[in-house]
Amino acid sequence: MNESMKQRHRVVVIGSGFGGLFATKALKDAPVDVTIIAKTNHHLFQPLLYQVATGILSEGSIAPPTREILRGQINAEVHLGEVIDIDIKSKTVTSWTPSGTLNDPYDSLIVAAGSTQSYFGNNYFAEHAPGLKSIDDALELRGRILSAFEFAEIETEPDAVEPWLTFVVVGAGPTGVEMAGQIAELAHRTLREDYRRIDPEQARVVLLDGASTVLATFGDRLAAKATKRLKQLGVDVQLGAMVVHIDEHGIEIKDPDGSVRRIESRTKVWAAGVAASPLAKHLANQAGLDVDRLGRVPVEDDCSLPSFPEVFVIGDMMDAGVPGVAQVAMQSGKHVAKIIAARAAGRDVHLPFKYVDKGSMATISRFAAVASVGRFRFSGFIAWLMWLVIHLLYLIGFKQRVTTLLHWTISFVGGGRAERAITRQQVVARRALDTLTPAQSGRPDRVRFPRR
Amino acid sequence: MNESMKQRHRVVVIGSGFGGLFATKALKDAPVDVTIIAKTNHHLFQPLLYQVATGILSEGSIAPPTREILRGQINAEVHLGEVIDIDIKSKTVTSWTPSGTLNDPYDSLIVAAGSTQSYFGNNYFAEHAPGLKSIDDALELRGRILSAFEFAEIETEPDAVEPWLTFVVVGAGPTGVEMAGQIAELAHRTLREDYRRIDPEQARVVLLDGASTVLATFGDRLAAKATKRLKQLGVDVQLGAMVVHIDEHGIEIKDPDGSVRRIESRTKVWAAGVAASPLAKHLANQAGLDVDRLGRVPVEDDCSLPSFPEVFVIGDMMDAGVPGVAQVAMQSGKHVAKIIAARAAGRDVHLPFKYVDKGSMATISRFAAVASVGRFRFSGFIAWLMWLVIHLLYLIGFKQRVTTLLHWTISFVGGGRAERAITRQQVVARRALDTLTPAQSGRPDRVRFPRR
Repeated sequence: MNESMKQRHRVVVIGSGFGGLFATKALKDAPVDVTIIAKTNHHLFQPLLYQVATGILSEGSIAPPTREILRGQINAEVHLGEVIDIDIKSKTVTSWTPSGTLNDPYDSLIVAAGSTQSYFGNNYFAEHAPGLKSIDDALELRGRILSAFEFAEIETEPDAVEPWLTFVVVGAGPTGVEMAGQIAELAHRTLREDYRRIDPEQARVVLLDGASTVLATFGDRLAAKATKRLKQLGVDVQLGAMVVHIDEHGIEIKDPDGSVRRIESRTKVWAAGVAASPLAKHLANQAGLDVDRLGRVPVEDDCSLPSFPEVFVIGDMMDAGVPGVAQVAMQSGKHVAKIIAARAAGRDVHLPFKYVDKGSMATISRFAAVASVGRFRFSGFIAWLMWLVIHLLYLIGFKQRVTTLLHWTISFVGGGRAERAITRQQVVARRALDTLTPAQSGRPDRVRFPRR
Repeated sequence: MNESMKQRHRVVVIGSGFGGLFATKALKDAPVDVTIIAKTNHHLFQPLLYQVATGILSEGSIAPPTREILRGQINAEVHLGEVIDIDIKSKTVTSWTPSGTLNDPYDSLIVAAGSTQSYFGNNYFAEHAPGLKSIDDALELRGRILSAFEFAEIETEPDAVEPWLTFVVVGAGPTGVEMAGQIAELAHRTLREDYRRIDPEQARVVLLDGASTVLATFGDRLAAKATKRLKQLGVDVQLGAMVVHIDEHGIEIKDPDGSVRRIESRTKVWAAGVAASPLAKHLANQAGLDVDRLGRVPVEDDCSLPSFPEVFVIGDMMDAGVPGVAQVAMQSGKHVAKIIAARAAGRDVHLPFKYVDKGSMATISRFAAVASVGRFRFSGFIAWLMWLVIHLLYLIGFKQRVTTLLHWTISFVGGGRAERAITRQQVVARRALDTLTPAQSGRPDRVRFPRR
C-alpha cells in the first residue's frame, strides 16, 4: 500500500445507471478513489428494457455487471448495497448489506440514484400495472404478457377470453409507445400460428394517455407519424384519457367529457410517470430545500447541492430545467467528474452544466421509428436504422453488442423471439399455479371449444 | 368442424420434457388428437441447465416454448396447467389453471411428468441448497452464486469472508461435476480481475458425494480422469461424505469413520438425488401397486401401467430397470407413441420397450469432458468436442442453437459470461436487501480493508 494513497480524494457515487457509470468512467485518470454503491450488480441499458419485457433480448444483453465494465479502472470499486442515509454534514454515506451497515466517508459525492415509477399517489395501481424500471420489472411483464395468451387459450368461459387478450399500456411517451408496438408485433406476428383455440391476431392493444398526443416531446409531425404507424399495427390509441382505477380484471378511465368507462383487461403496463429516488427528498431536507413535483432536488448551475459544493446531484434526480433522459444523466455525470477531477488536482473550478440535446428517438415496430435531431425530423425506415446503429453503439460491452445484434436478427428478420420462457416468479403465474386451489377458483368444468 | 373428428383417438400427454415432447412429436402423423398438459410454457433442455445457473446461457437458449416447437403439428395442442388428478377408471385428467379445473378425457394417456429434487426426507435442506431441475432453480442458483462474491467483497468481518467464498456441491453425478467445474471456472477465470478486496481465485469449491467415486456410472477409468481434471481446476473432491445437516451458514458431513464435521459455506447446491413426480404414487395407488424407493411406478414391458394398457408411464417416472436419463425419456416416449399410433389405426400391437444405451457424457470444464459410448471411453478435448456437437444437435430450435453457439464462443473462447445479471427474485438477495433492516443485522461498522 502506497503512503500517498491516504491523501487521495475519496469520491462516492450512488447508482450504477447512466449518470453514475459515466461519472465514474470519467474519473478514470483523476487522482481520486471512487466507490460506486448500487443496489443492483449491473448497469442497466434502460432504453432497451421493453425488449426484455417482450421476449426479444435476454437480461444479460442489456445488463452487464458494473464491476465487469469497470474491471480495468483500478481507482474504482463497486459495492452492492442499498443506501439508507447520506449525512451531508459529516460527509458520510451509510448503506446496508448482509455484512451490516457500511459507512463510506467522502470528499466528493455524486448522487445518481435515478428515478422510480410514479403512480401519482395511487400506489395500489402498482400490483396490477407494473412499471418498467428494472430487469425484474421486465421479467415480471414478460411473464404476465406471455401468460395472458396461455390463459386465454385454456379459458373455459367464452366471455373471459377477451380480457386475457386485451393489453393496456398507460402512458404514450417513448416507453409506452415502444411497449404497445412490441406487444402488437408479438401478438400479430410472433405468436400468430402458435395457438389452436384463440387467434392472437385478435389481441387488442390499447395505448392510453391523458395528453392530447402521443410522444408529446417529439413535436406534432412525428407524433402524427407515430400515431399512424401505431394504428397500422392495430394499436388502439386513446388520448385525453385519465386513469382513475386499476384492478386485477380491468382499468377505469375518465374521458375529457368527464364520463368514466372501464376496459376489461388482465394485463396492464404502467409507463405514465416517474419520480426521483427518495434520496432526493432526503438530501433536500438536510439542505433546507424543497423538492419539485417530480421529487427532484434544486441544484446550482454546476449540479451541486446549494451550500454543499462537494455534493452533486445528477440525472433524473436534479431539478435543473432539463428532461429526465439518458443523455442528461450521461452528460451531467461527465460534467461533475470534470469538476471533481480538477478539485482533486488542487484547482478550484466553477463550471456551469450545459445540456446539449443530441435528439431523441423512439421505435414503434421493426423497420419503423421516429427521430428528432436538432432541427431535423426523421421517420420510418431511415429513423429505425438510426435507432439501430445508435443503440448498438451506446450499448456497453462487446458481448452485449454481439448478443443483441443476434437477437435482433432473430426478431426483426425471422419474426421469432428467443426469450419466451415464463419463470414462476411472475405474480400472475405464481398466483395461478401456487396460491389458488381448484376449490377456491370455483369455476365450472371446461367448455370444449371446437378445434380448428 | 369435421364430423370424423369426433371419433379421433384422444391422447393426453402430461409433461413437456424429453418424454412428453418426443412422444407428442412421434404422434405427428397418427390419426389422433394430442393434448400436452405442462406446468411450464417451455420444453427444458435440462442437460445444459447448469450453464444457465453459472451465467453462460440465457434461459431462452435452453427453454423454447413448447407450443412454438409444436407450431406445425396441427393435431397437437398445448395447455399450461398443473395436473391435480388422474382418474384411470373414468379415463380423465383434471388440471387446474386460473380458468378453473379442466377435465380432459383420454383414450390413451402418456404420463411423463419426470422427477423432482429429492432431499431423502430432509426437506428443510431445500431452502439452503437449491437443486437444479427448472429454469427458476437455475436463476435462483445464478443469483446466489454471483451474490456470494458481491457479499464477500463488502464483508466487514474478516472471518466471514471465507464462508461467502466457499461453494459446496452435493452429489458427484454429471450435474454435480458440471456445477462444481463451472463454479470453479467462474471464480478462477471469469471473475479473476473483477474484485478489489477479495481474490476470487481463492474461492473454494467442494464437491461431496456419499459414494467412493465421482461419476459412478461412468466406470473407474473415466472417474479417475474426471477426478484428476476437477483437482486441476481446484475443486476439492470429498468422497464417502454423507450430508447430515444444512443451514444458512454451512453444511455438516459425516465421514466414513463416523465423525461429523462442518464446512462453513453460504452457498450450497444440491445435485444428489431425484424422486419421481408425485403423480407416480397417485397412479400406483389407483392401480393397487407400490412405488419403488425412487417413487417410480412399476410398468409392463411396453411401459403401460399393469391392468391399464391405455396408460403409459415413461422416462424418470417408470420403474423399468433403466436409468433416469434423457435418452430413456426420449426413447420410451417414441416407443409408446408407436403403440398408440398403431392402436388408433385399428391395429392391436404389443411392443416391448428396449432401451438402447447411446452412451453418456459429462463436461468438467471448457475443453475437458468424459464420454462413454458402448465399449469406448473418451476423455479430454476429444470428449469435449463430442459433447459440444451432440448437445448442439439435440438442442431444439434453430434460434436456440445459434444463441447457444454464440454464448459458448463468448464463454469458452473469451472467458466471459454473457448472463451475469442478478435479479431480485433470489432468496439471498431478497433477504439481504428487502427483509433485513440495519438494526436487525446488528453488525459493527465496516472495517476498512487495504486497497490493492
